[in-house]
Amino acid sequence: MSYLNKIMSPRSVAVIGASNKEHTIGSDIMKRLVEYGFTGKIFPINPKDSEIQGMTAYPSVLEVPEEIDMAVIVINAKYVLSAVDQCHQKGIKGIVVISAGFKETGGAGAELEAKLVNKVREYGMTCVGPNCLGVVNTDPKFRLDACFAESLPVRGDIGFVSQSGALGGGILNILQDLNLGFAQFISIGNQADVNADSAIEYWENVDDVKQILLYMESIADPKRFRALASRTSKKKPIIALKAGRSAAGASAASSHTGSLAGADKAADALLKQSGVIREFSLQDLFNTAKVFSHCPIPNGNRVAIVTNSGGPGIMATDAVCEHGMEIAHLSDQTKEALRSFLPAAASVKNPVDMIASAPLEHYKKTLETVLADDGVDMVVVIYLPFLGLKDIDVAKAVMEIRAAHPDKPIVGVFMTKNEFFAHLSETEVNVPFFMFAEQAVEGLARLNQQRLWRERTDTPAPRYSVDTETVEAVFKQAAADNRVQLTTGESLQVLAAYGVRVCRDGEAKDADEAVALANKIGYPVVMKLNSKKISHKTDVGGVRVGIKDADQLRAEFADLVNKLTEKGLMDGFEGVIIQEMVKSDREMVCGCAKDPQYGQMMMFGLGGVFVEVMKDVTFRLAPLTVEDASDMIHSVKAYKLLAGARGAVPAQINKVEETLLRLSQLVEDFAFIDELDINPLMISGKDGEPIAVDGRIKFNATEALVALSIA
Amino acid sequence: MSYLNKIMSPRSVAVIGASNKEHTIGSDIMKRLVEYGFTGKIFPINPKDSEIQGMTAYPSVLEVPEEIDMAVIVINAKYVLSAVDQCHQKGIKGIVVISAGFKETGGAGAELEAKLVNKVREYGMTCVGPNCLGVVNTDPKFRLDACFAESLPVRGDIGFVSQSGALGGGILNILQDLNLGFAQFISIGNQADVNADSAIEYWENVDDVKQILLYMESIADPKRFRALASRTSKKKPIIALKAGRSAAGASAASSHTGSLAGADKAADALLKQSGVIREFSLQDLFNTAKVFSHCPIPNGNRVAIVTNSGGPGIMATDAVCEHGMEIAHLSDQTKEALRSFLPAAASVKNPVDMIASAPLEHYKKTLETVLADDGVDMVVVIYLPFLGLKDIDVAKAVMEIRAAHPDKPIVGVFMTKNEFFAHLSETEVNVPFFMFAEQAVEGLARLNQQRLWRERTDTPAPRYSVDTETVEAVFKQAAADNRVQLTTGESLQVLAAYGVRVCRDGEAKDADEAVALANKIGYPVVMKLNSKKISHKTDVGGVRVGIKDADQLRAEFADLVNKLTEKGLMDGFEGVIIQEMVKSDREMVCGCAKDPQYGQMMMFGLGGVFVEVMKDVTFRLAPLTVEDASDMIHSVKAYKLLAGARGAVPAQINKVEETLLRLSQLVEDFAFIDELDINPLMISGKDGEPIAVDGRIKFNATEALVALSIA
Repeated sequence: MSYLNKIMSPRSVAVIGASNKEHTIGSDIMKRLVEYGFTGKIFPINPKDSEIQGMTAYPSVLEVPEEIDMAVIVINAKYVLSAVDQCHQKGIKGIVVISAGFKETGGAGAELEAKLVNKVREYGMTCVGPNCLGVVNTDPKFRLDACFAESLPVRGDIGFVSQSGALGGGILNILQDLNLGFAQFISIGNQADVNADSAIEYWENVDDVKQILLYMESIADPKRFRALASRTSKKKPIIALKAGRSAAGASAASSHTGSLAGADKAADALLKQSGVIREFSLQDLFNTAKVFSHCPIPNGNRVAIVTNSGGPGIMATDAVCEHGMEIAHLSDQTKEALRSFLPAAASVKNPVDMIASAPLEHYKKTLETVLADDGVDMVVVIYLPFLGLKDIDVAKAVMEIRAAHPDKPIVGVFMTKNEFFAHLSETEVNVPFFMFAEQAVEGLARLNQQRLWRERTDTPAPRYSVDTETVEAVFKQAAADNRVQLTTGESLQVLAAYGVRVCRDGEAKDADEAVALANKIGYPVVMKLNSKKISHKTDVGGVRVGIKDADQLRAEFADLVNKLTEKGLMDGFEGVIIQEMVKSDREMVCGCAKDPQYGQMMMFGLGGVFVEVMKDVTFRLAPLTVEDASDMIHSVKAYKLLAGARGAVPAQINKVEETLLRLSQLVEDFAFIDELDINPLMISGKDGEPIAVDGRIKFNATEALVALSIA
Repeated sequence: MSYLNKIMSPRSVAVIGASNKEHTIGSDIMKRLVEYGFTGKIFPINPKDSEIQGMTAYPSVLEVPEEIDMAVIVINAKYVLSAVDQCHQKGIKGIVVISAGFKETGGAGAELEAKLVNKVREYGMTCVGPNCLGVVNTDPKFRLDACFAESLPVRGDIGFVSQSGALGGGILNILQDLNLGFAQFISIGNQADVNADSAIEYWENVDDVKQILLYMESIADPKRFRALASRTSKKKPIIALKAGRSAAGASAASSHTGSLAGADKAADALLKQSGVIREFSLQDLFNTAKVFSHCPIPNGNRVAIVTNSGGPGIMATDAVCEHGMEIAHLSDQTKEALRSFLPAAASVKNPVDMIASAPLEHYKKTLETVLADDGVDMVVVIYLPFLGLKDIDVAKAVMEIRAAHPDKPIVGVFMTKNEFFAHLSETEVNVPFFMFAEQAVEGLARLNQQRLWRERTDTPAPRYSVDTETVEAVFKQAAADNRVQLTTGESLQVLAAYGVRVCRDGEAKDADEAVALANKIGYPVVMKLNSKKISHKTDVGGVRVGIKDADQLRAEFADLVNKLTEKGLMDGFEGVIIQEMVKSDREMVCGCAKDPQYGQMMMFGLGGVFVEVMKDVTFRLAPLTVEDASDMIHSVKAYKLLAGARGAVPAQINKVEETLLRLSQLVEDFAFIDELDINPLMISGKDGEPIAVDGRIKFNATEALVALSIA
């Protein structure tokens, strides 16, 4: 069980390492607690001084005569463990270890951190840090600022988790300027115990936190994150900035908080499946938070634009279209109403251009009229300064109207001086104001994304009845042979056992066997090299298609053997696979790869020779929900090919979906599978059925031996 | 000849419509001229008042006893023409018509504007406007503010053209906040005479203008723009925001090239070929301008990052990689030098993380050390506030170092309070400072883009010797037949006449002719429907491939005729085309489509069934330079296929390039061609030669009749 509530909402706090020495963390933390007006009791702990900042100090927590909910530890790393022991003796359940010198310093520090974690687990404590900035709760009931950032916190609705202490501090410094405040802040540091998951779980039911912001460089436990975030994100938006996405960035990340960075594709899939809104820059993160702070979730994606200048109206229109939202069609009634008071030169179509002469009254009436239109879900109001109309007056009018219409999001684009925004930052606002149209529209796009996520209900994939025995037998045989890769034949056998439609085929050791088999399958056939050593068959001429009869088959077989012999590639030769020749002009690819951190990740997209060139593929973590599978299929460009572009037979989309779900079940059941490829997954030109024509499976032999109990 | 110099650098200005009445444009313009301290003479013109703002007013310019360089006209539209007459009589060569009521109001206004243009041309004048905000020149020699924006101009190095008066005014209002100033500003309004081209041409040799910013909604004369901008952009950066991109193109085009094209693609191609840096938001426009204001063009793309916090260092690294630049490898010498003074916990690899405790001295020494490394072309300096180190002190240190190292761009990421930036806006700076890492790195990417453009020298395409007579004959015949579309056979004939390698083929009216032809070409062959009515042959089963012998050919011919008869599609049937069967697994597409505004636009990319699904195509306006053609080929993802991915024979890239250049010559010579498609342009699996297998050409019959003189 988590004692985060003791940490975030304590009635009493001990500061272990409180100090009278200026410019030390032990002094700063004490000052902050006092200055911000912590409503509970503060117990400075210091073995030397008996009074710190006017308060009685105690040599250890054990001497404190009252109960302590939470301890902030700021002493040298080497004394931290014994301090934790004392906390335990005192019955303290929540600790925040600000001290550095743990995992981030490597070797000995990592060992120390391991010991700290063991103690925390053994004592049943909850621990934030180590190597962190601290925690903040702006709830007036607590007013806890146990954090050594430069600025005092500003009250707002954000729950904010930062993996980087430094960056977290930087962000707290500028939040106020950006018109944003937060409810709670947790600097998770090395996330030895408390991580983003714990915060999400805790905040799910904290009403004070209306939206959750995450700065992450790694995700500690992807499975748990998915489970918790996908539930919480239905109630309140979760917005994440995940850094370290380039290979170079990732390597910089590993030398940072002492954490391993995972593949960015996997992180992206995880965030998508968890309903987390991903941002790629701090600025976007803040803009989105600003919009969620002041806007309801809309009922649709139709945007109206009200402006006093054409240019920004066009730019907003461009942005609306680019984000896949709609420019609202105003009703005739709305247009007539607008026409009744706007000048002739104004445009009453969306975007509504009231022209530069628009007085305050026009802003008000136009907004009211547009908001009343049932065809409008969201509104962008644009203001450029003209003819003495003051920005702040327009802003006030917009905010009054917003208050009277709580159901529809309104965002402001005020292309005016910084002082306007500086002024706003000292004011209570109920509308997000931006300087540029693109920022405002991107905010609306995020609201719309949250709407779509809320409307989505994920259905767990059905458990298909499959033939696990065959699969086990195949892996056992391969493991017994000391192989980590299945042959093509074995791979297709495994897929077939899991109900994937594979093309009819069989193995043949020599030309006679090949002909017998082809006669059974029916011509034309494909002949493929079957080798334990060669994985990219095409590269060695190992795939022959469109073989029409027995004579041709014999000739091709002889030719293949000759070629391989010439190249010295006969080692591992097992004969050939004879396959039914599937008539198709559409080749897809699907498969699974295991990321060391995120686990098994499914892939789907355009296959054949285009896979690595076009990179028209998408990823989701296994296990897939029904919606995940459907999402994957619909999110690649090649979906149009499946749907039947240019008169082609439409693919059986439900069968493609089922193929993905069956694969997902396969890799879940056999978690030691490292890589799986169906390439191509051909779409039959006859009836659109997806047919696995080639397959490759690689696995982890050690894990397999354990899992299959044949060690 | 242009008299923009008279307008922008006048020794005397007449204000026609100067007024004593508060809050009128005639009053505001007068005030601005005086307030900003115009260094020349001002002559208010007003038939009623004899004194305006303390200056002698004249009833008309004709009464002014001295010479007048430029007149600003702010009177009612209906009096503008006669004012222009008087200006002419007075010998005034430059006028700025601020008055609205012209083309933007439609019908009568458009007529009035046409009359205005005629007068301006007749009198040999240069005219800015009408319906504009005015002009500004901050050069201390002139100090001309003839513009009714809210704010007084701030001196800087930008030449700024705005098509939207309102937006231009809004931008002037906020420029100072953004630490940007400008040299000259022209609000072109309806661009009846002076447009972006004229400004570019004029500013090319105005030393005061170091960079040119454009806000455009349309490009008046694309050809002229390309000629002028591509020259000027080699000397100074041109940065454009082109709005109205989503409003583009519901064209009823029937070809692939036509349907994938569209006005915004054309604008994009034009800006690329002109060396203009395109931005998609005002914020990006300003950020880029800020970087060009304070940075030299770098010598390479290797970026070093110096930071006191890991997180933003990772974000900067991500951004550098995403913009295709390199993370600089610091030399061992550099690393040793850094190690000598940085603490053990610091990272001396790039990004150099000096850690949170870094004092000012470390910033200075680290920057000096990194700048001295020959492997570093540009530097990002990141600062987060810690431990009492003040942002402004760090900024000053960075600026001092910048002054001592004028050759390498330095950008600052200061994640600190707005007041820092507010303070900067009142200071002289020599380094662009941003709040977020992504903005700073994007700025460096723009510098790098400008470097690459400067290094590029465009070579005009060679004039290939071609057979124009054949082409003329084909078009004449088609025109005589009242057709606007060539048959496949004719299309390939035209392409062949221009030296494009088309696959061997011929037409056959019946099965006997088909067999005779196929015997000549050699089996296997492809048989294609030849119809004057059916353009998408595949959709009606009109393409039969891999025909092995005469028997099969006869059977397929009979089957085709049966099918067409059944479907009632025999009208327009001309027989079939018999073609050599090109062995290829790579199908490209190339072609040309005519945009009503931008003219003929070439396309190249991945062909076959993927064209409209993958949209892996690129566009450039004709005529192509050699570099344009090469650029096109290298900029599509499918380039990897051409280069020979997965063991395929590499395409003859020079032949592909030549094909594009020959097409460019074709559409230049026969400018009445509306659409041209080669799909597929197959890459021979044998030797990589590009072979046009199918072609479609549509043309404008009226234009053709004129051009071919057969009207």
